[in-house]
Amino acid sequence: MKKIGVFPLFEKPEAARVARKLIHLLAQAGFQVVMEEESAARLDAAELGCRKEDLPAQLDYGVVLGGDGALLSLARRLYPWEIPIFGINLGHLGFLTEVEDKELESAVEKLRRGEFVVENRIMVNAEVTSAGKQRACLVGLNDIVISKGLFSRMLRLELLIDGFFTGMLAADGLIVATPTGSTAYSLSAGGPIVSPQLSALVLTPICAHSLFNRPLVVDSNAVIEIKFTAPPHEVLLTADGQECLGLEAEDGIKIYTAPHRTKFIRFKEKSFYHILREKVKEGKL
Amino acid sequence: MKKIGVFPLFEKPEAARVARKLIHLLAQAGFQVVMEEESAARLDAAELGCRKEDLPAQLDYGVVLGGDGALLSLARRLYPWEIPIFGINLGHLGFLTEVEDKELESAVEKLRRGEFVVENRIMVNAEVTSAGKQRACLVGLNDIVISKGLFSRMLRLELLIDGFFTGMLAADGLIVATPTGSTAYSLSAGGPIVSPQLSALVLTPICAHSLFNRPLVVDSNAVIEIKFTAPPHEVLLTADGQECLGLEAEDGIKIYTAPHRTKFIRFKEKSFYHILREKVKEGKL
Amino acid sequence: MKKIGVFPLFEKPEAARVARKLIHLLAQAGFQVVMEEESAARLDAAELGCRKEDLPAQLDYGVVLGGDGALLSLARRLYPWEIPIFGINLGHLGFLTEVEDKELESAVEKLRRGEFVVENRIMVNAEVTSAGKQRACLVGLNDIVISKGLFSRMLRLELLIDGFFTGMLAADGLIVATPTGSTAYSLSAGGPIVSPQLSALVLTPICAHSLFNRPLVVDSNAVIEIKFTAPPHEVLLTADGQECLGLEAEDGIKIYTAPHRTKFIRFKEKSFYHILREKVKEGKL
Amino acid sequence: MKKIGVFPLFEKPEAARVARKLIHLLAQAGFQVVMEEESAARLDAAELGCRKEDLPAQLDYGVVLGGDGALLSLARRLYPWEIPIFGINLGHLGFLTEVEDKELESAVEKLRRGEFVVENRIMVNAEVTSAGKQRACLVGLNDIVISKGLFSRMLRLELLIDGFFTGMLAADGLIVATPTGSTAYSLSAGGPIVSPQLSALVLTPICAHSLFNRPLVVDSNAVIEIKFTAPPHEVLLTADGQECLGLEAEDGIKIYTAPHRTKFIRFKEKSFYHILREKVKEGKL
Repeated sequence: MKKIGVFPLFEKPEAARVARKLIHLLAQAGFQVVMEEESAARLDAAELGCRKEDLPAQLDYGVVLGGDGALLSLARRLYPWEIPIFGINLGHLGFLTEVEDKELESAVEKLRRGEFVVENRIMVNAEVTSAGKQRACLVGLNDIVISKGLFSRMLRLELLIDGFFTGMLAADGLIVATPTGSTAYSLSAGGPIVSPQLSALVLTPICAHSLFNRPLVVDSNAVIEIKFTAPPHEVLLTADGQECLGLEAEDGIKIYTAPHRTKFIRFKEKSFYHILREKVKEGKL
Repeated sequence: MKKIGVFPLFEKPEAARVARKLIHLLAQAGFQVVMEEESAARLDAAELGCRKEDLPAQLDYGVVLGGDGALLSLARRLYPWEIPIFGINLGHLGFLTEVEDKELESAVEKLRRGEFVVENRIMVNAEVTSAGKQRACLVGLNDIVISKGLFSRMLRLELLIDGFFTGMLAADGLIVATPTGSTAYSLSAGGPIVSPQLSALVLTPICAHSLFNRPLVVDSNAVIEIKFTAPPHEVLLTADGQECLGLEAEDGIKIYTAPHRTKFIRFKEKSFYHILREKVKEGKL
Repeated sequence: MKKIGVFPLFEKPEAARVARKLIHLLAQAGFQVVMEEESAARLDAAELGCRKEDLPAQLDYGVVLGGDGALLSLARRLYPWEIPIFGINLGHLGFLTEVEDKELESAVEKLRRGEFVVENRIMVNAEVTSAGKQRACLVGLNDIVISKGLFSRMLRLELLIDGFFTGMLAADGLIVATPTGSTAYSLSAGGPIVSPQLSALVLTPICAHSLFNRPLVVDSNAVIEIKFTAPPHEVLLTADGQECLGLEAEDGIKIYTAPHRTKFIRFKEKSFYHILREKVKEGKL
Repeated sequence: MKKIGVFPLFEKPEAARVARKLIHLLAQAGFQVVMEEESAARLDAAELGCRKEDLPAQLDYGVVLGGDGALLSLARRLYPWEIPIFGINLGHLGFLTEVEDKELESAVEKLRRGEFVVENRIMVNAEVTSAGKQRACLVGLNDIVISKGLFSRMLRLELLIDGFFTGMLAADGLIVATPTGSTAYSLSAGGPIVSPQLSALVLTPICAHSLFNRPLVVDSNAVIEIKFTAPPHEVLLTADGQECLGLEAEDGIKIYTAPHRTKFIRFKEKSFYHILREKVKEGKL
C-alpha cells in the first residue's frame, strides 16, 4: 500500500475543503494518506497524523494543495528523499503546480494506475562558511539570491567559477537560478529562459553597475564562489524568496547544484514550451 | 564683495588641508568666505562660521570639497536659492565634480574673473500624501526611488501620468531620474542615458515582472502619480540614495520636476558627451 | 471654404468605398475636397483632381485613408507646409491613425466645428554629404536608420554630438528616432519609450558589439554627426523604413531635428499614455 | 608518424612567414606536414600538397594560421572527422585561437609530447527542406542565423521546439548559437554568455517586436523547427556569419546540435572564465 503525504496550505480558503475531498479519493483508490499532526488535527482526522520529522522518510509520494509557493516549500523539504511530488492548484495557473481542483479524480486515478511521468528538477545549494567553518546551508528549487538591504550601497563581489577568478561584480545583488527558477526572479532581472531539461545554473546580476553585467549560464557541475571585497552592510542570502540568512563581511559563499533532485509528477503531456506560450499570452512573461 | 560658502566633507582625509588652501586662495581673490559654524571650528577659523540655517540665503556661490555624493547633498540643500555651486573632487573623477585638487588656483582665478558658464540641472520632487494631506516631501538631483524591502514581495503599483492611467507595474521598485541621474542608478536598472540639456524625467522599473517593463522618458512638465494596489510591506522612498522615508499602503505619491534648478558652475568646456566617453573608457558605464 | 486633401491608400481593399463616403461627407460639411489626379481618376471624380506637385501648397487639412504606414508617408510629404493631418484607419488600431471607419461622420462634423486639437510631432532630417557637398537628404517622422547589409560585417561608426566626439560604435546599425518613432523600431532594439510632448531624439544602437551600447536621449537641438571608420560595404540610410539610400565609405551623415513639424489633428482626448496602455494590453509592446 | 594539416590564411600578411617557420618546426619534431595543393604551391613546398578533398580523412591534427574567423572556417570543414585542431593567432587575442606567434616552438613541443587537453565544442546544424525534401544543410561552430534583408519588413516566424509550438516571433531575425557562439553575435543581440562545458543551444531574437523577446537556452538534444507565417522577402540563413543561403517562403528549417563535435587542442590551462575576464577588461564584451 503506497503512502502519500498530503500537505494543505491552510492560508488558502479552499484548502480544507479540497483536502478532505482529496483524502477521500486517495483512500478509495487504495492509498494510505499521512499528514503532519497539526494538519490532520485541523481536518479532524487525527488518525492520519504523523510527527513532522518522521514523515518524509516513509512517503512514496507527496501532494501539496496551494500554489507555486507552497510547492517550492515542499520541494525544499522533501528533496533529500527524492520523493515524487505534485501540486494541486488553489490559485491561478502556476508554472509548477500540475492539477486543478476539478481534475482531482482523474489525477488520483492516474496516480493509482501509474499513468504519469516523473520530471527531475535540479536544486541549488548555498553553503556559507565563516573562518573556514560551514555555518549555514540553504537550498532552493528556484534560486539562491544575494542581495543588499535597502539602505546599503551596492555590493562588490568577487566571483570565482570552478576556482577561476571570473570577475568583479558591482551590483544590487546576484541571482543563481536553476532552470526552474529561470522564469521567476532571474527573468525580471534580465536573465534568459532555460529549459528544465538542461542541467545548468544561471547567474543573473541585479542592477549591475559594472561592465560585467551579462547573465552567465554554467554547467550544473560548476562551483560558484563569492567573496565580498568591500565590507557589506546588511546583506542577505535568500532561497526561493522564502528562506533567508544575514551575511557578514568575512563570509565565504559557495553555490552549486544540490546532490539530490526534486521529482515532479506530471500527469499531462504538457511541455515546458507549451506552458511558456500560455504564460506569454497571459502577459505573465 | 561676493560671498562664497565652503562645504568640506571632513570624512575625506584631505578635506581639511584642501579646505585651508582653498579658503586662503578665495580670500586673496577678494571673496568673503563663509562656512557652517561646525566646519569653521574644525578648521580653527571660527570667524568664518555662520549659523547653518542662515547660510544659504546670503551666498553668491557654494563650493563643496568631496565627491559626487557631497555635491548631490549640497545641491539638495541649496537649490531653492538657485545658488551656483561647484565641487572640488577629493576622490576619483566624478560626473558632477568639476575641479581637481591641483587646479584650485586656476579655478579661483576663473571664478574671480567670471570666466565660467552656469549649467542648469533640473531636480525631482516627491510629495507623499496621506488621507489627502501632504506628510512629507523629498527632493533629488539624481533620482527618487520607490523600492521594496529585502523581505517584501514585489511591489504592485498603479501609475498615472498627467492624470492618465498608464499601467500597472509589478516590480522591485521604480526609479524616477533626472537627466543628471540617468547615468547613475537608472542606468544600472536598464534606463537610457539622457543629455542634461534635456528637460525630462526617466521612469525606469527595477526588475519588472510585468509586461510594461520599458523605461519611459517624459517631459519635465509631467506629473507622475503612484498608488499601491496591494498593501505594501516595508517600502521606501529614497532621494539620491541619501535620504529616505518609509511608506504606508494608503500613501499617495506625486513626483514632478522641482520648481527650482541646481546651477552648476563649469570652468571647462568639457561636454557631457566627453565625460561620457571617458567613463565608458574607464569601464564605469 | 476650407480645402482638404484626401489621400486613399488603394492597396487596402476598403479604401475606395470609404474614400467615396468621406468625400461625400466632407462636401456636405462645406469642405472643398482635392485629390491627386490619379486618385481622383480611380474614384471617377476627375473634377477633384489636382497636379501632385501643386497639391500641398493649397491645403488647409490632409486626411489619409490607410494605416500608420500611410500616415507616415503623408507626414513626410506634407510637413514642410505644416498642414494639419489625420488618418482614417483601415486596418487594426494604430499609434498614429485617429479615426475608425464607423466614426467618419462625427469626425467630419468635429472638423467642421473646429472641435479638435493639433498635436505637434517633430521630424528628423538626415543630410548626406560627400566631399563637402550635400548629395541627399531624407526626412522621417519615426526614425532615420543606418544599417548594414546582410552580408556585411558590423559597422564601425564614429559618433559626434554637437561637435563632441562621443564614442565609437561597433554595431549592426544605429537608429535615430523621434518620440513618435520611440514605440516603433527603436523599441525593438532596446530603446526607451519617449513621450511625444518631449522634444528629443533617441539614439539606439542595433546589436552593439561595443561597450557603448546604451540608448542615448538628446535634446532636439542636438546635431548628430556620423563617420565610418572602416570602409563600409553595403550600408543603407532609411527613413521610416520606407525610403532609403545607399551610403559610401566617404559619406558624412548629419542628423538633426527638422525645421518643420508634423501637425496631427486629434479629435479625441486620448492621451499617449492611454494608447500605450492599450498597446501593452494587446501585447503589441 | 602523425600527420598534421597546416592551413594558413594567406590574407594575413605574416601568414606565409609564420607558416614556413611552423612547417620547419613540425618537421623537426617528427610530424608529417600536409597542406592543400594550392597552399603548398604558395609556399614553394609542392611536396606537402594534397588534394583538398582527400585531406581531412588522413589527418591526426589540424592547425590554422589566422584569427578566430579562420578557425571557425576550418572547424566547419574538419568537424565530421573530429580531428583535434588549434589556431595560431596572427591578429589580436581571440576567444578561440590558442597560440601566439612567439609561442610556436613551445606549442610544437607540447604537441609532440602530447601535453595538451582536447576540448569538445558542439556544432549546430540547419537543415532546409522544401516540399518535404532536404535542399540544403549548413553547419556552424558559433551560430546559425535567420535574418531579413535590408529592405524587408520584419520576419514572422512560428517556432516549435521538440514538436511543441512555442510561440510566434516577430523580429529582424533569430540566432541559434552554441556556447562557443554565445560570446559572439548572440551577445550583441542580448543573449547570455554560456559556458562551453554546457551542451546547450541559445535562441536569441534579433530586435523582437513581439512579446516573446527573451533569449531561450535549450538542451543540446532539442530540435528547433521554424516556419514562416508571412511570405518572407529576402531572408537569409547564415552559418558563423561566413556561409549563407537564401530562403523561400515555403522552406521549413530544422536546427539541432550536429552529430559531431569540434575538438580544440588546448596547451594552456586557461579557463573560459579567465578569457572572459580578459575580454571584459579589454572592453570587448
